[in-house]
Amino acid sequence: MNIASYQERIEQELRTWISNLPEEPENLYAPLRYTLEHGGKRMRPILALTGCGIFSDSVEAAVPAALGIELFHNFTLLHDDIMDNAPLRRGRETVFKKWNTNIAILSGDALFAESFKLMSKSPVFALHDILDLFSQTTIEVCEGQQLDMDFEQRRTLHVDEYLNMIRLKTAVLPAAALKIGALCGGASAQDAERLYTFGLHIGMAFQLQDDILDTFGDSEKVGKQRGGDILANKKTVLVLLALENGSATDRDELRVWYSTTTDQPQEKIAAVIGIFNRSNAREEANRFMLAHQQQAFEAISELTISESKKEILRQFADQLLHREH
Amino acid sequence: MNIASYQERIEQELRTWISNLPEEPENLYAPLRYTLEHGGKRMRPILALTGCGIFSDSVEAAVPAALGIELFHNFTLLHDDIMDNAPLRRGRETVFKKWNTNIAILSGDALFAESFKLMSKSPVFALHDILDLFSQTTIEVCEGQQLDMDFEQRRTLHVDEYLNMIRLKTAVLPAAALKIGALCGGASAQDAERLYTFGLHIGMAFQLQDDILDTFGDSEKVGKQRGGDILANKKTVLVLLALENGSATDRDELRVWYSTTTDQPQEKIAAVIGIFNRSNAREEANRFMLAHQQQAFEAISELTISESKKEILRQFADQLLHREH
Repeated sequence: MNIASYQERIEQELRTWISNLPEEPENLYAPLRYTLEHGGKRMRPILALTGCGIFSDSVEAAVPAALGIELFHNFTLLHDDIMDNAPLRRGRETVFKKWNTNIAILSGDALFAESFKLMSKSPVFALHDILDLFSQTTIEVCEGQQLDMDFEQRRTLHVDEYLNMIRLKTAVLPAAALKIGALCGGASAQDAERLYTFGLHIGMAFQLQDDILDTFGDSEKVGKQRGGDILANKKTVLVLLALENGSATDRDELRVWYSTTTDQPQEKIAAVIGIFNRSNAREEANRFMLAHQQQAFEAISELTISESKKEILRQFADQLLHREH
Repeated sequence: MNIASYQERIEQELRTWISNLPEEPENLYAPLRYTLEHGGKRMRPILALTGCGIFSDSVEAAVPAALGIELFHNFTLLHDDIMDNAPLRRGRETVFKKWNTNIAILSGDALFAESFKLMSKSPVFALHDILDLFSQTTIEVCEGQQLDMDFEQRRTLHVDEYLNMIRLKTAVLPAAALKIGALCGGASAQDAERLYTFGLHIGMAFQLQDDILDTFGDSEKVGKQRGGDILANKKTVLVLLALENGSATDRDELRVWYSTTTDQPQEKIAAVIGIFNRSNAREEANRFMLAHQQQAFEAISELTISESKKEILRQFADQLLHREH
C-alpha cells in the first residue's frame, strides 16, 4: 500500500484514457481533453485506490472506478463553471468561456456518461453495490449544487443547512471514492461503510478548514490572498456562526458589510475578522472541524485491518488536513 | 406478450417514481416532475418491455431499465431545449424558459444520474452488459447532438454524414432499449444483438419517414402544418439528396431558398417541393427508408423465437412506421 505512488498511476491512466478518446466530433472531445489534461490534485481517485489498497495487494480492480470518479468530478466543475459564470479554472479559461455554453453543457454530459462507462468496468462481484452508491452520490452532488445556488438568494440561513449543503456538494464524493475502492478490493460491507464514514468526515473537515483558512490562514502557505471569501460576500461557516451567535450590534454590522462591495478591502477584512473573533465564530468553526476530524479518526479505529495500515491512513488524513504546516 | 398494456404500465411506474421524488431542493425536483408528468408516447420504455416480453413471461425484470431509458430520453430533451433555445416542448414552456438555464442544466444532470440509478437495478446476471451498452449509448447520443449542432453551421454536408448523425442522435437509443430489455429477459447474446439491429433500423426508418412526412405527409394525419422543415431551412435528408443529385439549376435555386426566410411561405414550399420531385430526392429518401424497414424485418426473421412472436413484432413495427394510415 503505497499512497505516494497512486497520483502518478492516476495521471498515467488519465493520459492513456485521453489519448484513446475519439477525434470527432471535435467540439465534444476537445473540451474533455482540455479539462482533464491540467487537472488538480486527483484527490478523489487517490482515495479510491487507497480504499482498495487497504484490502487488496493490488489496486488494479479499482483503477476504472477511480478514473470514473475523477471524470465525474471534472464534469461537475465543467457545469458548475457555467452556472457560476466563472471565467477561470486552475488558471485557465473555463470551457464555456473558451468555447461556448452549449459546448460546455454537452461535453459535460458526455464526461458524465464516460464516468458511468468506466464505473461499469468495476469487478462484477461488487458492481451492483458500486453503481448503487455511485449513482446515489451523483444525485446528492446535484442536490448540493442546487442548495448552494438557492442559498445565495436566501436572506437567512442556518449553520445546519450550510453543513448539509457542503456535505452533499463536497463530502459525499470523497466518501464514495473510498467506499467504492474498498468494495473493489473485497472489503466487507461493514469495513466499506466505515471507510465511507471516514471519507465523509474528512471531506467535511477539509471544507470547514477551507472556510477558516481563507480568512485566518497564512497567505503564503495557503497560496491565495487572505480574505477572498469576505470580499466576495461568501456565506461561509464563519459568517453563519457569527450571525447566529454574535451580539446584535455585530450581527447588524456584519449584514451591512455583506450587503455591499467595498473600495477599502483591508478595512472590510479587518472589521469582519473582528466580528468573527468577538462572536466566537472562529473558535466555533474550529470546534466543528475538529469534531469531524475526530469522527474520521474514530472510523479508522473501527476498521478490522492491521494497525500498520490504520497508521498509514492516519498519516494520510493528517497530510490532507494539515495544509498549513 | 401484450404490447398494448405496456404503455399504461410505464405511466403507472412513472407516476410512482415521481411521487417518491424528494420535495427538496424544490428547484431541482420540480422541473423533473414537470418534465415527466406530460410525457409523450413512451416509445423507448415500451420497446424495452417488448424486448423483455419476447424472451420472458414476465417483464418485471426490465421495468427499472425501461424507466431509466425514459428518464435518459427526457434528460436529453431538457438539455437539447437549452441548446436549441426552444421555447416550447409538447405544447408547454420548456424548463429553461419556465425556470432558468442553470436550473435546466442541473435538473437535467440529476435526471441523467437518476437514469443510471434505475439502470443499476437491472438483474445482476445481465448488469455488466446492460451498463456497458447503456453508457456507450448515452455517449453516442451526445455525439449525435454535437454533430447536429455542428451541421447547422456547415455549408456542405453529405447524406452519409447526415445518416450517421441521425443514427447517433435518434436510432441508437430505441435499439439499446430493445437490447437491454432482451438481456433482462434472458435472451442469448445473438438474439439480443438481433433486436438491437431491428431497433436501429426501425429508428432510422422512423426518422427518415419524419423528414419525408413533414414535406409530403397529409397535414391532418401528421398533425402539423406541412412544410415546417422547409420554412425553418432545416437540413433534412430531402435537402441533402437534392443538393447531391439535382441539376445545377435546381441546386442553386435550393441554396438560395435555404439561405433566406420568406414572407411567402406557400410559394417557397411549392418551389422546394418541385426541386425535391425533379431531383428524385423524394423517391431516393423513400428508398433509404424502405431499405431500413427491410433490414429491420430481416433482423426479426433471424431471431430464434416462435413465429407467432415474430408476427407480433412485425405488427408492432408496422404500427410504429405507418403513421400515415
